Amino acid sequence: MIYAVIMGYGTIGSGVAEILERDKDRIAAGAGQEIQLKYVLDLRDFPDSPVADKIIHDFQTIEEDSQVKLVVETMGGLKPSYSFVKACLNAGKHVVTSNKALVAAHGTELLALAKEKKVNFFFEASVGGGIPIIRTLYRCLLGEEIQEITGILNGTTNYILTKMDKEGSLFDDALKEAQALGYAEQNPEADVEGYDTCRKIAILSAMVTGKEVNYEDIYTEGITRITDMDFRYAQKLNASVKLFGTSRIDGPVVHAWVAPVMIGKDHPLYGVSDVYNGILVKSRMLGISMYYGSGAGKLPTASAVVADLIEAAQNEAYHVPLGWNSERLSVADMGSFSSRYFVRIAGDVSQRADQVEALFGAGEVVVLDGADEFAFITPRMREADFKEKAIALDIPWQKEGKQGILQIIRAEL
Amino acid sequence: MIYAVIMGYGTIGSGVAEILERDKDRIAAGAGQEIQLKYVLDLRDFPDSPVADKIIHDFQTIEEDSQVKLVVETMGGLKPSYSFVKACLNAGKHVVTSNKALVAAHGTELLALAKEKKVNFFFEASVGGGIPIIRTLYRCLLGEEIQEITGILNGTTNYILTKMDKEGSLFDDALKEAQALGYAEQNPEADVEGYDTCRKIAILSAMVTGKEVNYEDIYTEGITRITDMDFRYAQKLNASVKLFGTSRIDGPVVHAWVAPVMIGKDHPLYGVSDVYNGILVKSRMLGISMYYGSGAGKLPTASAVVADLIEAAQNEAYHVPLGWNSERLSVADMGSFSSRYFVRIAGDVSQRADQVEALFGAGEVVVLDGADEFAFITPRMREADFKEKAIALDIPWQKEGKQGILQIIRAEL
Repeated sequence: MIYAVIMGYGTIGSGVAEILERDKDRIAAGAGQEIQLKYVLDLRDFPDSPVADKIIHDFQTIEEDSQVKLVVETMGGLKPSYSFVKACLNAGKHVVTSNKALVAAHGTELLALAKEKKVNFFFEASVGGGIPIIRTLYRCLLGEEIQEITGILNGTTNYILTKMDKEGSLFDDALKEAQALGYAEQNPEADVEGYDTCRKIAILSAMVTGKEVNYEDIYTEGITRITDMDFRYAQKLNASVKLFGTSRIDGPVVHAWVAPVMIGKDHPLYGVSDVYNGILVKSRMLGISMYYGSGAGKLPTASAVVADLIEAAQNEAYHVPLGWNSERLSVADMGSFSSRYFVRIAGDVSQRADQVEALFGAGEVVVLDGADEFAFITPRMREADFKEKAIALDIPWQKEGKQGILQIIRAEL
Repeated sequence: MIYAVIMGYGTIGSGVAEILERDKDRIAAGAGQEIQLKYVLDLRDFPDSPVADKIIHDFQTIEEDSQVKLVVETMGGLKPSYSFVKACLNAGKHVVTSNKALVAAHGTELLALAKEKKVNFFFEASVGGGIPIIRTLYRCLLGEEIQEITGILNGTTNYILTKMDKEGSLFDDALKEAQALGYAEQNPEADVEGYDTCRKIAILSAMVTGKEVNYEDIYTEGITRITDMDFRYAQKLNASVKLFGTSRIDGPVVHAWVAPVMIGKDHPLYGVSDVYNGILVKSRMLGISMYYGSGAGKLPTASAVVADLIEAAQNEAYHVPLGWNSERLSVADMGSFSSRYFVRIAGDVSQRADQVEALFGAGEVVVLDGADEFAFITPRMREADFKEKAIALDIPWQKEGKQGILQIIRAEL
């Protein structure tokens, strides 16, 4: 038998407690020993909950209890979770967390500390909810040279974009619906501005490169500028728009960014709809593989936490090597990234197509019936070159007092 | 350093040798020690290959070499692979295999022997090519109660069905093309009759139930009866036809079967095209998750073998528990399985729709322009009930000397 505690009895923490109780036999069989919940740390009391008699308010009780070997951190945020987790590792306890902010901000230090103390610091639930992507990277694709990892990593934005795509909803309406359903926070900034995806792709980039990634180095663009007009064009192109977090590794050059991308029906992530997440991995031998599932939610996320607990219990006396070291990854400038671009332009295609073609060459032009604008898709080009040409295209029109470029979305078509 | 041998220098075996040499540093980092290829066992010589100086013809050399700790079996078939693998395990060597026939036929005995000898018997490459599905089941979804596992597990048949779907090809033409491209054998029976999928779903069913599964207990239907007409209906229904291997676990009742299934665009496996494989897992906490990638091919499959080798080297002194025991799973009769059914009927819908509705209730009826037949999709019902009603529908027509039911395909729409 091994004793565990849960710090933070919110949605995920209560899910973990529920599973530990309900599935204790199956978990014991997997872990090789029974996992017994001893305390639940929270500021609040939960007198009507099944863990009422286990609630404590004082972290020191956990830190000083040498019986406690497994600690689940599901508080979220950095304070006080960072200092609590650090103290637990220092006290020789294994820590399992669902907290992407903590892993993105302090993962390097906490991984090193876990290694030093010969315990484990696991964080499967911090990326992709219940999808076992972290474990796939360090257990299954160990011999692989990973060339790309691209994910739809945020369920809220994927729900909004799916609504806009399938039902023609406006961004604001889709967001309100997501809020009403509890998929989006009242302050949705972290989701819709891409900050959540940014932290997750930072963690995945660190996993695949073995180096520390500063999430502030990752170019991040959210979905607030995506409109119903964009989806009308996408439909004509047999395409959709998804928020991607991506990391492309080309030898020493690593691009990592978060942005909406227009993708065609043949893209393996095209079918990832609603609140689901999907993660595509491109590796040298296996080629493209893809992992799909519930990216959020009480039980899916708790399921990933429990998988971590089982692996920690299996390795009670061992440190399982995973993660990254303190060498900082140098993320390449977006200017050197190559992509195609979907560009919407005000005005009449018959008057402006020549200017476009003169600058970008013969790309694909798309016209919507009755719209006083048109779109084109550039060939694949370096982002710096694209921007230069886009400015050269935009300025003459602005000089004439006319609108120029209305929208730019990276495209994989 | 740990010594490895490869038995069988065919497509996969030579891929493993190639990767072990090319990626030796990465593999050593993952395994915690260098993996050194000592011998390659084959009946043939390969004087121009990079392993020319390692080729041996006598199995005893391997069996008696106590330096050799890791054995890769990529010979295929049961003779002599079964006796060789057994001898290796008996000699205290870890064995990694890509041989689904071996695992399906003798897995129970070989797993027990590995456990007894405190070595490992790994077989990631036997199912889903490079997709890490076996490891996902025993490493990532350990605490989960698995309710269903459904896969597109055979690349050849998926290629043929994709051709028929997207290009309107006839079965025979698509098969010939698959043969010309090397995707299908000259004798394609094992693929197109579903036997290959049957062995793979037997292995997956044993993994998720923990019990031995006799693949002969699994109802198996191939794709040779699927025609271009079926795909014309599928197109009208926004659907496609895929060959599924599936295992559904409802408490003590387990249905396992192989058959073509008509699925809609919203099905997570709909986008799995060409030679790709996809595996859907439904589990109690995580819900639906899906794993997608190259189901065959030299390097993807070799990648899975190498992942197994790394895990074996990491656990040189430990037996990693996985697999199933000798208790035989009782596979439930297909009669008690519930599904919807796509049924094509000869004749004019205006004359026959009443008979259909009287028996099956108001289902969906589909009519193709200019065809002297129509189709309907039944509500969900037990297969035994469906068959009874289908016979009741068919017999009166046959009595009149007319054609009755032209096609039956299980449907998830």
